[in-house]
Amino acid sequence: MKVVVKTLTFSTREKFELVNITDEVEKAVSESGIINGICLIFAPHATGAIVANENEKGLIRDILDHISQLFPPGKNWLHNRIDDNAHAHVASSIIGASLTLPVINGKVIRGTWQDVFFVEMDGPRTNRRVIIEVLGE
Amino acid sequence: MKVVVKTLTFSTREKFELVNITDEVEKAVSESGIINGICLIFAPHATGAIVANENEKGLIRDILDHISQLFPPGKNWLHNRIDDNAHAHVASSIIGASLTLPVINGKVIRGTWQDVFFVEMDGPRTNRRVIIEVLGE
Amino acid sequence: MKVVVKTLTFSTREKFELVNITDEVEKAVSESGIINGICLIFAPHATGAIVANENEKGLIRDILDHISQLFPPGKNWLHNRIDDNAHAHVASSIIGASLTLPVINGKVIRGTWQDVFFVEMDGPRTNRRVIIEVLGE
Repeated sequence: MKVVVKTLTFSTREKFELVNITDEVEKAVSESGIINGICLIFAPHATGAIVANENEKGLIRDILDHISQLFPPGKNWLHNRIDDNAHAHVASSIIGASLTLPVINGKVIRGTWQDVFFVEMDGPRTNRRVIIEVLGE
Repeated sequence: MKVVVKTLTFSTREKFELVNITDEVEKAVSESGIINGICLIFAPHATGAIVANENEKGLIRDILDHISQLFPPGKNWLHNRIDDNAHAHVASSIIGASLTLPVINGKVIRGTWQDVFFVEMDGPRTNRRVIIEVLGE
Repeated sequence: MKVVVKTLTFSTREKFELVNITDEVEKAVSESGIINGICLIFAPHATGAIVANENEKGLIRDILDHISQLFPPGKNWLHNRIDDNAHAHVASSIIGASLTLPVINGKVIRGTWQDVFFVEMDGPRTNRRVIIEVLGE
């Protein structure tokens, strides 16, 4: 068994933003040399999330707008007595900060319309990280 | 370490539908010969999802109705300028297209009321797929 | 490859409650002796969930309140003709009952503000379980 880890670091520019990390995921898997196993994509952040979906400009706006409607920044959150990002914490809890994809025959498996995104919900931030862990053999 | 993969292919008949794949998951794990490890269930689709819950007729209707209320097909989505299924894309992003279950002592672990379902949110479709990957030894 | 499993059992006291299991997750990983791999945290319950987020009193209330608003116990659910907890089933389906964290250099990876919680949504219950499975080498 082999475990190969790659950590992405990047900045975000907007309060709500999708950062497309698909190429980095593909590259991490192909560089790992692992033929069969899994690829775990994990954001060590309580105000971000990881999702897989289509890289279409209108849809990206739809996803972000809908998140901000389901988890409204302006709600009277208790956590906002000491901070201003409760909406992002609650959204991160429910959407989830990790995604696991199969790795089969040397390729990471995803659908035609499934790019992988980090979801920023409390930006802009200068130091966001995503851990890509490939495990298998 | 051993990796065994099984791909399910099936059609869906409704716009919103739960397809129970529990038996196929159980079978994939028992046929894999893997005693301890994990079972990753992954839908390579941006308008579907994977969930675990109770196989009760009323509840199945509740889950589907509630998804269509949280992600209304009739909302003025930007993605619907070029397609008609933005609700399903946004729901898939948030609900998630993968589920990982423990495999212990030769059995996949799930609760008494946790059947495994593919969630169709943009049906009917003739070619849906779910990948069941069992990894362990 | 090595697989080490630990099962937590506990009671809950409220209808909606977050049970912090971070210490048990850390301990399971360090006691496993596994250096690199993954840690799967799985609740075998259809009315609970697993989330990662900040252990702040106000935020904990926010998360629970928001779940009960997105999945209202008082809605006219069909499942409630035979039970009284449809809200918890639907929420469990969408939030998800599993979480996978990386294990790297002998430590489970999580963000500074990511504690791990079992989400009770149909309490109080006397016999809740969470399975912590560490897989790697």
